[in-house]
Amino acid sequence: MNVTMKEQMYEGKAKQVFATSDPEIVMVHYKDDATAGDGEKRGTIHDKGIVNNKLSNALMQKLEKEGIPTHYIQELNDRDTLVKKVQIVPLEVIIRNVAAGHFSLRMGVPEGTQFKTPILEFSYKCDDLHDPFINHYYALALDLATQEEIDTITKYSFKINEVLKKIMADVNIRLIDFKLEFGRLADGTIILADEISPDTCRFWDATSNAHLDKDLFRRGLGGEEDAYQEVMKRLLG
Amino acid sequence: MNVTMKEQMYEGKAKQVFATSDPEIVMVHYKDDATAGDGEKRGTIHDKGIVNNKLSNALMQKLEKEGIPTHYIQELNDRDTLVKKVQIVPLEVIIRNVAAGHFSLRMGVPEGTQFKTPILEFSYKCDDLHDPFINHYYALALDLATQEEIDTITKYSFKINEVLKKIMADVNIRLIDFKLEFGRLADGTIILADEISPDTCRFWDATSNAHLDKDLFRRGLGGEEDAYQEVMKRLLG
Repeated sequence: MNVTMKEQMYEGKAKQVFATSDPEIVMVHYKDDATAGDGEKRGTIHDKGIVNNKLSNALMQKLEKEGIPTHYIQELNDRDTLVKKVQIVPLEVIIRNVAAGHFSLRMGVPEGTQFKTPILEFSYKCDDLHDPFINHYYALALDLATQEEIDTITKYSFKINEVLKKIMADVNIRLIDFKLEFGRLADGTIILADEISPDTCRFWDATSNAHLDKDLFRRGLGGEEDAYQEVMKRLLG
Repeated sequence: MNVTMKEQMYEGKAKQVFATSDPEIVMVHYKDDATAGDGEKRGTIHDKGIVNNKLSNALMQKLEKEGIPTHYIQELNDRDTLVKKVQIVPLEVIIRNVAAGHFSLRMGVPEGTQFKTPILEFSYKCDDLHDPFINHYYALALDLATQEEIDTITKYSFKINEVLKKIMADVNIRLIDFKLEFGRLADGTIILADEISPDTCRFWDATSNAHLDKDLFRRGLGGEEDAYQEVMKRLLG
């Protein structure tokens, strides 16, 4: 891939995105910055950017092999990756296999309760409104996505859940819940975008139920650096 | 209908329910009590019980003619009605045609914005949790209803919306949004239960957009007694 990096297009909480000489390709740079509680808590997790970059790239490559189109193109170095440029669909998809976090608080269901069937939910990706929980009728009525896009995103999300659950189970990790974002290519094709990492997934050790994800930071439990490294070691050796 | 009234089974915010000599029939008594803001605001709306009883019964009879099974059996007097005994499905269904109220606040959409397509949403009917907004995956995962029940409830709710919109348009009222509850008969059949009234619907005068519903009480605007009477007059003459 022979592209040169150009100006920064966007800086998020955990990543920067740079234009490249190819208008259909952008470069993602993973930072160590961490936020929680809708941005109220800020800090860093040492080498988180390296873990998330490498993990997300490895998982997206596995998902591609299972028929899920993703934005992944090429890992450039520890923190930088070339991905396909997309217009992000303003829907955050959350899949839940086990009750945890905000869900448990709102629904009065103890953390760790296994659901009979996975839950899929949408949030409207909008910082000013704090990403409110919506459903697919909201998405249609507010023109956030078409019915066809919602059907594709729903199908891909459940399939991703099945693939990821298996990958994680093989390294003795329970996939509790996770967040996905999808994007549109210039021709409208829906592909998986953003990242899949301990920032965006709840991972519990399958034996001890120890947190191996951002909840350690979010809840001030400590040990987040070791946990991120542990997930990388188990998955990438 | 030759049944005799027996003990009170349940007292809600706006209604009492009594057993009858027939185990499959209960009597509903409509009160004037009004609450708002999750029970924080309490008051009465003079003769609200009469309006809601008569309106709900008239609307349910019209819905029956359009193929929607309801709990309605017989109006006994101004405030008392015999209905089929059901086990309430713990899902509140809300249909929205126009942005208003809590939706507008959460989503940043001005009150009065017409949606391209109606929104359907479910809340988990649970006072302790303040009836949280959920979706159908939650309902399945938490065993609140079966997929078949959810499909039936969804189909009926959209059909009820079409029928009610037309009935209200004929008396120059816009149907903004409304809440429905469904119940299971002993054999599992899903039927419409609860009530359809200015307590459970947002009605706006189609010319002036004046509120003709409980928002007058909820927001302390005043004039709620006249508004309830006005809706009854327009619909029942």
